[in-house]
Amino acid sequence: MMEMITEAREMQATSEKLRQQGKRIGFVPTMGALHQGHLSLIKRARRENDVVIVSIFVNPIQFGEGEDYEEYPRDLEADSKLVREAGVDAIFAPAAREMYPIKHITIVSVEGLSKRLCGASRSGHFRGVTTVVAKLFNITRPHTAYFGQKDYQQAQIIRRMVSDLSLDLKIEICPIVRERDGLAMSSRNRYLSVKERQAALVLFNALQKAKSMLQSGEVEAERIKEEIVSLIEREPLVTIDYVEVVNAESLEPGDEIEKETLVALAVRIGKTRLIDNLLYEPGEVL
Amino acid sequence: MMEMITEAREMQATSEKLRQQGKRIGFVPTMGALHQGHLSLIKRARRENDVVIVSIFVNPIQFGEGEDYEEYPRDLEADSKLVREAGVDAIFAPAAREMYPIKHITIVSVEGLSKRLCGASRSGHFRGVTTVVAKLFNITRPHTAYFGQKDYQQAQIIRRMVSDLSLDLKIEICPIVRERDGLAMSSRNRYLSVKERQAALVLFNALQKAKSMLQSGEVEAERIKEEIVSLIEREPLVTIDYVEVVNAESLEPGDEIEKETLVALAVRIGKTRLIDNLLYEPGEVL
Repeated sequence: MMEMITEAREMQATSEKLRQQGKRIGFVPTMGALHQGHLSLIKRARRENDVVIVSIFVNPIQFGEGEDYEEYPRDLEADSKLVREAGVDAIFAPAAREMYPIKHITIVSVEGLSKRLCGASRSGHFRGVTTVVAKLFNITRPHTAYFGQKDYQQAQIIRRMVSDLSLDLKIEICPIVRERDGLAMSSRNRYLSVKERQAALVLFNALQKAKSMLQSGEVEAERIKEEIVSLIEREPLVTIDYVEVVNAESLEPGDEIEKETLVALAVRIGKTRLIDNLLYEPGEVL
Repeated sequence: MMEMITEAREMQATSEKLRQQGKRIGFVPTMGALHQGHLSLIKRARRENDVVIVSIFVNPIQFGEGEDYEEYPRDLEADSKLVREAGVDAIFAPAAREMYPIKHITIVSVEGLSKRLCGASRSGHFRGVTTVVAKLFNITRPHTAYFGQKDYQQAQIIRRMVSDLSLDLKIEICPIVRERDGLAMSSRNRYLSVKERQAALVLFNALQKAKSMLQSGEVEAERIKEEIVSLIEREPLVTIDYVEVVNAESLEPGDEIEKETLVALAVRIGKTRLIDNLLYEPGEVL
């Protein structure tokens, strides 16, 4: 029996009661428009916890001006069906006025990490994310929360927030789920026309190229970046937002690849912004 | 039997266990150097909860450059004795490296409210306060936390943080405790020389003046401010940091006193900065 909860107080009371009963709570925060990527997080949460809570909330304060807050796909009915079938115990789906009943003046911000990669082109985005996620953690009180590696920077920022603020929970980052042709699953893929969908494959192809370079022993970040850029530039429908090869923990660039490395891409295809990435541990057999 | 806990993990586990047993936790965060003001908070917490936790932590990130972080009085032994006698169940007294083991990059900030009054002259102070208090709440997991009205702006900011971040706890603000001659209790009073201690009485006298003006029906904030300023200026050892008459909730100034009002003062006496305030509800019999 799945509960649909829309009030923060009720969700909080439910979670508190579950914790008092000694139940372990797994939490998957989402903005809805669920796909197989979300479902993989839910399945993992299901395996590892007594109770699974999924939140569905399109968070206005993480969208910038001119971004797709209004257009962002919303389909609570389809989402509810999916998560019910996945064995979720509760959906927390508050209205915006429930989350922000009065002008919201408290900000949670992870400095430094939030300025780089997606933070450079989406000013204020990660403040909006960390603020709402802190709030969702306080409302759902999970033992473990699950995030997708596709939004790797987001997951790293949240991990750091949890550690810096001594939040009593664990963050798990789960692998990217891809379409059969390699495109990373994303709610925003539904924005793409047929031609754009075809062009979007360049992200996966570029990461495959980076992977084979790394496997062949390439250690210069700049060479990998150049190769990716030239590959993407051959695709006329796609414009690059950024291509970065950075330390996977600090998200800072380095000349040589020594420690765990993130190859991260963001592009625009028409009005749609897509991201993808690859994690590489030197010495690892990919 | 009072527990002395210095590790965040242990405090968190202790609190989690207490909550699972259905115990109500009252929390009094302090920077130590305890006085009767702190003890009044502890007594109230004792009356209203099953378990009382007091934290003692001089928080480096709320002190600005040139402020008194190094000099701030520390006396854990005397403090422990006081709180043991007051029936406290646990002291949480972490070292700075326990609270900030790595460079702390996550910030909790209440915008607007934090810029006014003390925030105007102590840039970054309230960010440091809200960040550490959020952390202390996550570690001690109280049902109710107690703050003194002397730091009224701090208490209001924390109240707003709790509400904005959906923290599941209540903030209680307790009345100012004064010396027999009216000086508000403060750990910083020990910095004062005999002459300065005498001069410091001007804060209380100024607030008494404001009170009698309000009782006589004065509704113009500017007149009250002028009166206070001229009264303090007659005291040569004292320089004014600010004198404000503001809405007690928004901390914004208004021309006329209609709603609950805060008369707030900050002064410097030698190297010591002291604050005091008065809350006034129109129509209230003072």
